[in-house]
Amino acid sequence: MSLKHDREWDYELERIETAIEERDAETVGLQFPEGLKRRGPAVADDIRGLVDDDVTIMLSGQPCYGACDLDTFLMKRSDVFVHFGHSPMKESEKIIYVPLFSNVDPFPIMEESLAELAPPTEDAAAERGTDPDGVDPDVGLVTTAQHMNRFGEMREWLEERGYEVHVRKGDDRLTHEGQVLGCNYASADVDADQVLYVGGGKFHPLGLAMEHPEKTVVIADPVNNVVTVADTDQFLRERYATVHKAMDAETWGVIYCTKIGQGRWEEAEAILEDNDDAYLITMDEVTPDRLRNFGLDAFVNTGCPRITTDDGPQFHSPMVTPGEYQIAVGHEPLESLSFDTFHGTW
Amino acid sequence: MSLKHDREWDYELERIETAIEERDAETVGLQFPEGLKRRGPAVADDIRGLVDDDVTIMLSGQPCYGACDLDTFLMKRSDVFVHFGHSPMKESEKIIYVPLFSNVDPFPIMEESLAELAPPTEDAAAERGTDPDGVDPDVGLVTTAQHMNRFGEMREWLEERGYEVHVRKGDDRLTHEGQVLGCNYASADVDADQVLYVGGGKFHPLGLAMEHPEKTVVIADPVNNVVTVADTDQFLRERYATVHKAMDAETWGVIYCTKIGQGRWEEAEAILEDNDDAYLITMDEVTPDRLRNFGLDAFVNTGCPRITTDDGPQFHSPMVTPGEYQIAVGHEPLESLSFDTFHGTW
Repeated sequence: MSLKHDREWDYELERIETAIEERDAETVGLQFPEGLKRRGPAVADDIRGLVDDDVTIMLSGQPCYGACDLDTFLMKRSDVFVHFGHSPMKESEKIIYVPLFSNVDPFPIMEESLAELAPPTEDAAAERGTDPDGVDPDVGLVTTAQHMNRFGEMREWLEERGYEVHVRKGDDRLTHEGQVLGCNYASADVDADQVLYVGGGKFHPLGLAMEHPEKTVVIADPVNNVVTVADTDQFLRERYATVHKAMDAETWGVIYCTKIGQGRWEEAEAILEDNDDAYLITMDEVTPDRLRNFGLDAFVNTGCPRITTDDGPQFHSPMVTPGEYQIAVGHEPLESLSFDTFHGTW
Repeated sequence: MSLKHDREWDYELERIETAIEERDAETVGLQFPEGLKRRGPAVADDIRGLVDDDVTIMLSGQPCYGACDLDTFLMKRSDVFVHFGHSPMKESEKIIYVPLFSNVDPFPIMEESLAELAPPTEDAAAERGTDPDGVDPDVGLVTTAQHMNRFGEMREWLEERGYEVHVRKGDDRLTHEGQVLGCNYASADVDADQVLYVGGGKFHPLGLAMEHPEKTVVIADPVNNVVTVADTDQFLRERYATVHKAMDAETWGVIYCTKIGQGRWEEAEAILEDNDDAYLITMDEVTPDRLRNFGLDAFVNTGCPRITTDDGPQFHSPMVTPGEYQIAVGHEPLESLSFDTFHGTW
């Protein structure tokens, strides 16, 4: 298949073309996450080159941060709707999910990460000068959607080096064995004291370490080419500081996120029922500008926890997770602070 | 009716209470424009005090800039949906529109504005030293939704001073005689060479002057307490500069706004059909951050013209109106540049 534009990824144009023809589609909606939006016009060109002239291609201009974040307006108005860059959170006949995999080689950084993992065998432990009795040769392995295509190879690579590798598929929210999301680390719930996370960014391994405090989480980041061991201290300090600020709040905004995979109605409703000074606010994008105008003392975000913890400091009033809210209002002790995770689809 | 919070406006709580009771509503959605969002929690409190405990009140956290901009997600999920601060663009059984009127007195600034209007009578003209033959004693009168409650008084006030006052109700997009919107000045299409605009802000009178270049537009702004005569020169210079920049564009993003009263599908489709290097982008909020990632050379915004003209300079690529697009691509002459207006509802 000849393409108008060169690119590194496989956009599965034939699958899209087939769906357009089979459904006799007149409208096709394409949704890309932020980092891939730039590719949108070229992909639209390629699809236009494959199908009838009367097919209208539409690009979603809504922000998109995950498979939880489908453009439902565009989806409803498209005969074929294609979501690029994430693995399916929930299968649907309407949606074509096109995962886009990183072409970064993970093995050089995995090689470096071995120095942070407990040695795989008694011999290796002796060689490193570690007490062989203390060696647990097992390791859990997790990664993100964009490295999922190499997951089998990663596992074999560790096994070849003597490790017993534990993997599992977390829950319904996840498509693949070994996959983690920013809001779900159930795939790391394995019988091993150490977990190797292969992937970019800080958020996923932090959540992983918070969710599994009893495990050592080693981060092999092939994108930034660094190995680190997840340290939750700084994160916890920030969260405690925010919770303390929120303790002074008299009025609360309770955010219910309207994005298809980010709504937790029961959590929001329970807080409302419990607190006469809490006001329910519905919104898709949760941003400082949108909340400032309400003039409330604090917010509890039942939507994406990544916004609460990563973007939180940008909000003019403290923003906490539902679990942190219970601490801030005195229903739970400070020690109960944990990472906010999502389970299930929608 | 005793209210928990003092306020200047009439939120028509009895009408809302009645609707909740009549419809046996379990969910009530409240939407406020940006400047009134701060009142949301207090209004929610007052409604909670009037109805059964099991009624859930929800505040829209979406940005809101007009009656064209209803939170359709919240509307669909509410048994009673109340839109505050704008007059109805389209009546619906589902929606309760609560207009909120300014309590600023318009007459002191109208008194000052008389110096800029042609005198009402031959005697008045002679007194001012104006040639009585050149006097057209007629004046058109327009205002915005928030001053609409005084419109009758304004008209009488001018008539008492000798003016023949011309008013009309523009088209379906408008609720009231004499009302103008940022995107619709049909109410000023009257048989008078001068129009008095009573209201705040710069955008409305500018659009008014652009839409009716043959008329003198006198602005009596009771909010900022100033009288000016609308001058479109600076505005036109900015628009021509943007159009010139857009002339170099090879690739175009065509924005279709998904807000209920801001979609012009035919305009967007016509541009797409005409231009192979144009890509349709669907979105609700049209912001620089959302468009930057597409990496396109220029944008034509078929949504709210106010974004194109007011926020345009903040976008990394030039953004033009559909009419300006026709100039930029050479289909229309430079002289055809005009203000972009909306007609009809949705």
